[in-house]
This record gives sequence, C-alpha cells and structure tokens, in this order.
Amino acid sequence: MSIQPAEMQQLVETLGVIGEQPGGGIIRHVYDAAWSAARQQLMAWMSQAGLELREDAVGNIFGRIQGDSPRTVLTGSHIDTVILGGRYDGALGVLSALAALRSIKRQLGRPKKTLEMVALCEEEDSRFHSNFWGTRAMLGLIEDDEFEHLRDLDGVTIGDAMRQAGFPPARYRDAIRDDLDAFIELHIEQGRILFDEQLPLGVVDTITGLYRFRVTVEGRTDHAGTTPMDLRRDALQAAVHISSEMTRIVAEVGRPAVVTNGWWNVQPGAWNIVPGLVEFSVDLRHPLEATKQQLAAEVRRRGEQIAAERGVGLSYEVVGDVLPMDMHAELKAELQAAAETCHVKWVPMISGAGHDSQVMATRVPTAMLFVPSVDGRSHSAAEFTTPEDAARGATVLVAALLRLAY
Amino acid sequence: MSIQPAEMQQLVETLGVIGEQPGGGIIRHVYDAAWSAARQQLMAWMSQAGLELREDAVGNIFGRIQGDSPRTVLTGSHIDTVILGGRYDGALGVLSALAALRSIKRQLGRPKKTLEMVALCEEEDSRFHSNFWGTRAMLGLIEDDEFEHLRDLDGVTIGDAMRQAGFPPARYRDAIRDDLDAFIELHIEQGRILFDEQLPLGVVDTITGLYRFRVTVEGRTDHAGTTPMDLRRDALQAAVHISSEMTRIVAEVGRPAVVTNGWWNVQPGAWNIVPGLVEFSVDLRHPLEATKQQLAAEVRRRGEQIAAERGVGLSYEVVGDVLPMDMHAELKAELQAAAETCHVKWVPMISGAGHDSQVMATRVPTAMLFVPSVDGRSHSAAEFTTPEDAARGATVLVAALLRLAY
Repeated sequence: MSIQPAEMQQLVETLGVIGEQPGGGIIRHVYDAAWSAARQQLMAWMSQAGLELREDAVGNIFGRIQGDSPRTVLTGSHIDTVILGGRYDGALGVLSALAALRSIKRQLGRPKKTLEMVALCEEEDSRFHSNFWGTRAMLGLIEDDEFEHLRDLDGVTIGDAMRQAGFPPARYRDAIRDDLDAFIELHIEQGRILFDEQLPLGVVDTITGLYRFRVTVEGRTDHAGTTPMDLRRDALQAAVHISSEMTRIVAEVGRPAVVTNGWWNVQPGAWNIVPGLVEFSVDLRHPLEATKQQLAAEVRRRGEQIAAERGVGLSYEVVGDVLPMDMHAELKAELQAAAETCHVKWVPMISGAGHDSQVMATRVPTAMLFVPSVDGRSHSAAEFTTPEDAARGATVLVAALLRLAY
Repeated sequence: MSIQPAEMQQLVETLGVIGEQPGGGIIRHVYDAAWSAARQQLMAWMSQAGLELREDAVGNIFGRIQGDSPRTVLTGSHIDTVILGGRYDGALGVLSALAALRSIKRQLGRPKKTLEMVALCEEEDSRFHSNFWGTRAMLGLIEDDEFEHLRDLDGVTIGDAMRQAGFPPARYRDAIRDDLDAFIELHIEQGRILFDEQLPLGVVDTITGLYRFRVTVEGRTDHAGTTPMDLRRDALQAAVHISSEMTRIVAEVGRPAVVTNGWWNVQPGAWNIVPGLVEFSVDLRHPLEATKQQLAAEVRRRGEQIAAERGVGLSYEVVGDVLPMDMHAELKAELQAAAETCHVKWVPMISGAGHDSQVMATRVPTAMLFVPSVDGRSHSAAEFTTPEDAARGATVLVAALLRLAY
C-alpha cells in the first residue's frame, strides 16, 4: 500500500497556504485564526476519509479507525508553526498520518488495535512559552498556573486565548489519554545529513539533550587609540578566545556533539572603544546525558581558565538543561522492518532538534521517522521536502502502522 | 612663574558645568547653546585678563598679547565635546592656555613674538562630520560644499547652524591665518600610560596613523541542533578566528601598535541558529606609516587565508586611512627644555588619539604636551586629571611660551 508523491504534494500545498504571509512564510500560532482554519481543513479531510473525528479540551484533533481493542497506536505531529515558518515542519507528520490512515481506511477492514492520527495543537513555543502544549495536555503535564502565567506579546494569557477559541481551560484535564500503546511521529530532518548523503529515511535513536547558558565577560572599556595592547582588559578578545575554545572542544568530540554561539551583544559597540562587556549564548547538545554534562563542565572550565588568564570577569547563567530521550527500542525495530519491507534505505539518526516525541516518550512507547530537508533548511519559507521523499516516508509509515495494528 | 592647582580646579569646574546633563556628562556641540555659553565664559575670562579678544568667521575665539613682531605663537585646544563627554578633553588645553596667558600678561611686558590662546570651535565630529572644523578653517582646508552637505541628526546643515549662531558661512575664508610660527596644544592623554606609570608629563613625538575597515564574513545559517559541526559554514566562528589572529599579529609587534574590534553585528543572532553573517570593525593604529600599511596588509591577508580555509565569504570596506603626523622637532625640544626648567619629569609619547595638532602640523610647526588621565578614562563623565597634574602641565606650558616668545 503505497502513498503517491502527487497526493502528498496536494496535501502540503493546500495546508501550506493557511497562514501564509504576503512576503512568504507561515504564521500559524496556537488558538489564532490561521490555526483554526488549518484545523477546519484537516477535519474536513479526515471526515471525507471516513475517520472518526474528535477534538480534545486543548484543541488537539484526532481521526480514528476503531480496532478490536481500544488500545491505540497514534501517529501525527503538530500544526502550529514558528513565526514565518515553512510548510513541512510538523505539518508533514500530520499530513503523512492523514494519507496513511485514509489509505488504510479505504483498503482494509477493522484493525486489531485502534489506529489514530493526531494534529497536535502546539509545539513551537512561538506565541506563548507553552512548548509541547498539545502533548503535555495529553500526558497530564500541564500545570494549573500556566493558564494565567503564559502570555503572548500582546499580554493575552493562554487561558483567555483558549476561551476565545472555544476551549474553556477548566476542562484541560479531559485531554489526558491513558489508552496509548505507541506514538509514531514522522518529521522533516531540519538538518542536512540525509540531504547531503542522498539518503531517503532516518529512524531516530535518540532526541538529543540540550544545555544552554549565557556567558557574560566583563573587561574594561578603553580608548582604542590610546591604550596599549598590554594594558587592555578587552572583553571581546577574551570572549572570542572562549568561544573558539568551547567550539574546538566540542568539535573534537565529533558527531553528534554540537555547540553554537549564535547570539552576541558587544558593548559599548563603538569602533574606537575597547569592548568592556560581551555576552554570548552557548547552545550545547549531545544525545548522551553523561557526555553532555561532561562537555558542559569542560567548556565552562575552559572559559573560566581563559577569563582568569586574561584578567576579565566571567559569569554563566544556565537557561536550559533538557535530558536526551531515547526512542523505544521495539518500536524503532518496527519502523526499521517497515522501511525494509518497502525497500526504502534507512539510517539510524540522532535528532538534534526538539520534538513532541521527546515528551510523549516519557509515558508512551515512541519512535520517529525523518525524511530529508532540501539543503537542510527549516524554520523558514525555504523549507522543502520533495514529494517523492514525502511519499516514501508516508509509505513506510503505512507499513509500520499495519505491522503494529493488524 | 607657576600655575597653582586651585586655579586650574576653579577654571575646570566653572567651564565643566556648561552643557552638563542631569545624569552627568557634557553635551557641548559646535554652534549649540551650551557651546555659545562656554564661549561667553571664556571671553569674559580673557577680557578680565586684559587679553585682546577676537573671534573668527567660524567661531574660533582668540585672546592675544601683542608682541614686537606680528608672527604669532599660538596655544590652545577645542571646546566642543563628544556626546556625554568629560570636563578635560579639549577644555584643559584651552584653560591651560588661559591660565598661562593671563599669568604672563599680569607679570611680564611686551613679548618679542605675539602670543595668542585659542578655543577652537570644533574637533570631535560629534554633531556634524566636520572633524577639526576650527583648525581646518584657520588653514583654509574647508571645502566649499561642506556647508550644505554636512548635516546633523536633525537634518540641519552646518551652514544653517552657523547662520543661526551668527557666523555667515560665506565669510569662512576670513578665518585663514598665515601669521602663525608655532602651535602648542596641551591635552589629556586619554589613555593610561602616564597614570599607570605615575608620570606627570608626556611630550608627543607623533600622532599615530589610523587604518579602519569593516570586515564582512558570509557563511550559512543552519539549525544549531541538526547541523553537525563538520557540515557548518559558521560565519561567527570564522570571524572569531579572524579577529583573534588580527589581534595576535598586532599585539606581537608590541607598543605602540594597536588594533581593536569594537563593533560587532552577528546575524540572525538567535540562540538556536548558526550565524550566517557577521560584520565587525577593525581599528588599526601605528605612528609609522610603513608599519601601519604593512600591518594592515598582514591582517587583511591573514583574514583572507582563514576565510578560504573555512569556506566562508569575506569582504573588506576601508572607511578610514589617516597618515601619522610627526610633531615639529625644534618645538618638541623647546617643550622638553621647558619641562626640565620646571623640574617636571617628562617622557616621549605617541598620541594614539587624533587631535587638532595633527591638522595644524600640516602647515605650522606644532607640538603637544600630555597630562595624565586618571585611570585612562576619557570621552565620559568619569574623565579626570588631578588639579596638581593640570597645574604642572600649565606651568610647563608657561615656560615653553616664555622660551618661544620672549
């Protein structure tokens, strides 16, 4: 049972204009109008396909093929986007689930286990700091106080946004599910490994761990002309040395360790003044928690050494420390076997980005399929996966669902 | 004939409140109200001292002791400030000249050569890009088209600002002087060499040369989690390497070579995105033109090497190339002799900052005295020179003027 490229292309192009901005890029944030319109479109498709429709208390939507058992194999991803995001991040997982379930519904009878697709309401953290909202709702991981504390840039609380969209927050615990036997998420890689190596499919071993901190280097502002090099306490040159050493340490470990210094603030920022204060971000990732912590300690220590040598002040502020999450071994094996059945070459992969699956995996056996991102592009209007790659991924997803539910 | 600390302190404190802002720091820009008030104060002091008063077509003001010869020994500095500048930069040279000339006028008769003090109207480039306006006017170095082309942030041309302040621009050539035999400028060091080494006086050998360019490094933006280190073209890491190597090359040459990367722009500037574009400034200074050019070529070449190794794009935009300017040998010797007469220990120095003297020296024998800046601070409200150091400098200035004019 194979999904055709033209079908995937039509689905992507139809959903992809909902929330699309005049200059390109999609804004589809949880509980906004574009988000509601995208849900309407999905519900129409699911309903036409004969799936049993349901929405939960926070706005996740489900399409169901009832099985002999109420125990459920769930597949899908999120439909919200980053600001000016692309057509594939999240959406492709939802649309692959749709293509898979409507194909199964059309061609096969009642499964042993119940099959469900889901369009999760929120993952991206791009309107409220509500990261993984849809998944957290299903697992009972939302805290009572979030409804009043999480606010968007206009000051609207997520509770009010829910009320306006027709989801009274008081009912949020109704979203909790305890009938899930498996969750499978197909997603674009959002990186360039599959694309560069011309591989069609990845089966995720682990979603990487993340350690984030802000480095502040304090030196002394001095006149750029009148202060000899040997009398300076140049915060920028110290920061540059620290950044380059942190990067060297992590790069020497090799894949999949990564570190990025993406954000910089150099003060006072004048051509003729030696910088007195520099802040920069460190985003360090590794799928083994022990290695992640060891690398974090090592780069922090090296930074302290350099600061001491150069006589500048140094402080760290940790802003994120997320555990890596291994995918479920048996479920991974099912995905690998499904790929082989379909004659699709697959490789084991690390997910360097965060996904709903890392939260789902804390309670439910979970695994992920990656399809290639052209040129590794993501979180932009340039995001693209060929219809052929999308169809190959959806076909493997069908095969996996058949293995798990029939 | 020695100038007392209390006299210098009183002068500095009186002038230093003109244009002072509520939060500290002075704004006294050419042709503005604070600038006019400062000129009124100076003219009052000069007039009380019995100096012959004159203002020229652009707003420089002069106080004169007529000598047997009309050939003139001029001393002074500028009275405009940077935005939120201090009480000493420029002002101390004007006030030392005032203290010197009123002391001479009080105690001595007619000199052989004419003695004059000057408060130059503009040096700092902080309202219009009119750098050294007062000195350039005196030397006939202002171009006709500057009056309409130079605009402040409100769009006011310097021509209109002059008209409003009572200086019709059409008369600007009346400011040209051809009667100057010498110019002596006392200035704060604006650096920390005299302060750190506890020395009271510097006699400037050379005002350093300056080479400024903007570096643009183009890499590729990538997801910080999903892009392995070996597949990145990280513009920031390339820039960091270039900056650190440029700094190493210049620092190894030793004093007085300096280089500063004071301004940085890292794009897109997100924690989770590998930077795709980085711009930073290079401000390179050396008092020997050949060494300056050789260092400029060397740091540029090293940058190109690193960019090629890392596969990133690199471009340079030169925004300034100023020749070093040697001070006049005989005039320097007079300053050194004057210091010795006064038993003030002096050291030869390089000026790392720009001064009116570097322009004056293109036409008139010119030399400079430096007095210490506490903690090297300048261009800020924290600028400070002790009354004792200020008085010592002014006393040496008196001795030098006596040697030159009597």
